[in-house]
Amino acid sequence: MTKIPQRTVERFFRYCQFLHTRLETGAEFVFSRELAAAVGVSPEQVRRDLMNFKLKGTPQRGYKLQEFLDELYAHLESSSLTKMVLVGVGNLGKAILSYFLKRRPNLSIVAAFDLDPEKTGRVYSGCHVHHSAQLEKIVNKEKAAVGIITVPAASAQEAADALVRAGVRGIVNFAPAQIKVPAGVFLEQLDITLSIEKAAYFARRIKLSKELK
Amino acid sequence: MTKIPQRTVERFFRYCQFLHTRLETGAEFVFSRELAAAVGVSPEQVRRDLMNFKLKGTPQRGYKLQEFLDELYAHLESSSLTKMVLVGVGNLGKAILSYFLKRRPNLSIVAAFDLDPEKTGRVYSGCHVHHSAQLEKIVNKEKAAVGIITVPAASAQEAADALVRAGVRGIVNFAPAQIKVPAGVFLEQLDITLSIEKAAYFARRIKLSKELK
Repeated sequence: MTKIPQRTVERFFRYCQFLHTRLETGAEFVFSRELAAAVGVSPEQVRRDLMNFKLKGTPQRGYKLQEFLDELYAHLESSSLTKMVLVGVGNLGKAILSYFLKRRPNLSIVAAFDLDPEKTGRVYSGCHVHHSAQLEKIVNKEKAAVGIITVPAASAQEAADALVRAGVRGIVNFAPAQIKVPAGVFLEQLDITLSIEKAAYFARRIKLSKELK
Repeated sequence: MTKIPQRTVERFFRYCQFLHTRLETGAEFVFSRELAAAVGVSPEQVRRDLMNFKLKGTPQRGYKLQEFLDELYAHLESSSLTKMVLVGVGNLGKAILSYFLKRRPNLSIVAAFDLDPEKTGRVYSGCHVHHSAQLEKIVNKEKAAVGIITVPAASAQEAADALVRAGVRGIVNFAPAQIKVPAGVFLEQLDITLSIEKAAYFARRIKLSKELK
């Protein structure tokens, strides 16, 4: 098991993303320079990455898309199923459940949790919603490795603590609150509102500076 | 108009976020060390940031939450309304529309666009959905400054191009595709799937390395 740095992992997933998009359009081959342009990485970087793979390309046609993808996924060790759970079945939670339904065969959201009795017992996008009191038991039983947090800000740390106690090794936090997890748990924080506020701030500045000219 | 670096802007928005959460719990004061701990910033950094503000705190009670927020928003120049539009009324688009409804008085999604005739003409979370062919006309008329892209990957660049032609100065792209915008347009890319895949990757690695011990 070689250790791949976080930035490389991210780049590899971006490659996968683009290759998937190309496959869907019916293409069979890709040139490294196309990949570089699409992903916003230098052609040299792509070539350096490719040196790690057992891939044969030709100058005429480039690389076979499917072989390229297989190599990437082999490096990302994602051939086995990773089970995930989702906490907080609001609009964003539902959007994520529906997105992951069948689209990612190796990533599966096996259970969702909510406090609202209107939601518990129901099924959204093929995923059962349980009461949050069941979280530790079910995460344990399912051996889920990742928890996705889509609860309001005030409940985010509590959700994270329960997930960590239940044994998840990775958390993706969408709640607009900074949460803390112990060492040994990977944390990714994705603040949608913050990103939109930031874009609004810079858009205003750009507009102002144009008007002042 | 002073130029605030992007990292500072982000930190200020995180401060706002935390102060809002505290206000909602009924608190009136905050200590700089609480803020530092909650936001994951050093107390020295918070104190340096505070030196820019006209704020009087006391060692006994800390800073007045509302005054602190007012100062932050003044620095972020966000007292005026920023109009935004959203392209792609799928599950994620609907989640964002419902989130912004009334919650952020200075950020308003004034129109949404979709190609689906089932959606055009309808209203979601108070926002009218227009056909995408109307995008440039409406963005222009409304003087919207920010475009939020929640279309599938294959349509993302097209949506971005239309938004740029219509005159937006900031784009937040949620489509799992790298898009390009000309200089002078702020671009924030937020790839939800990528973040979840990355967390799954690192969670698998952490699990494996524990099992091998």
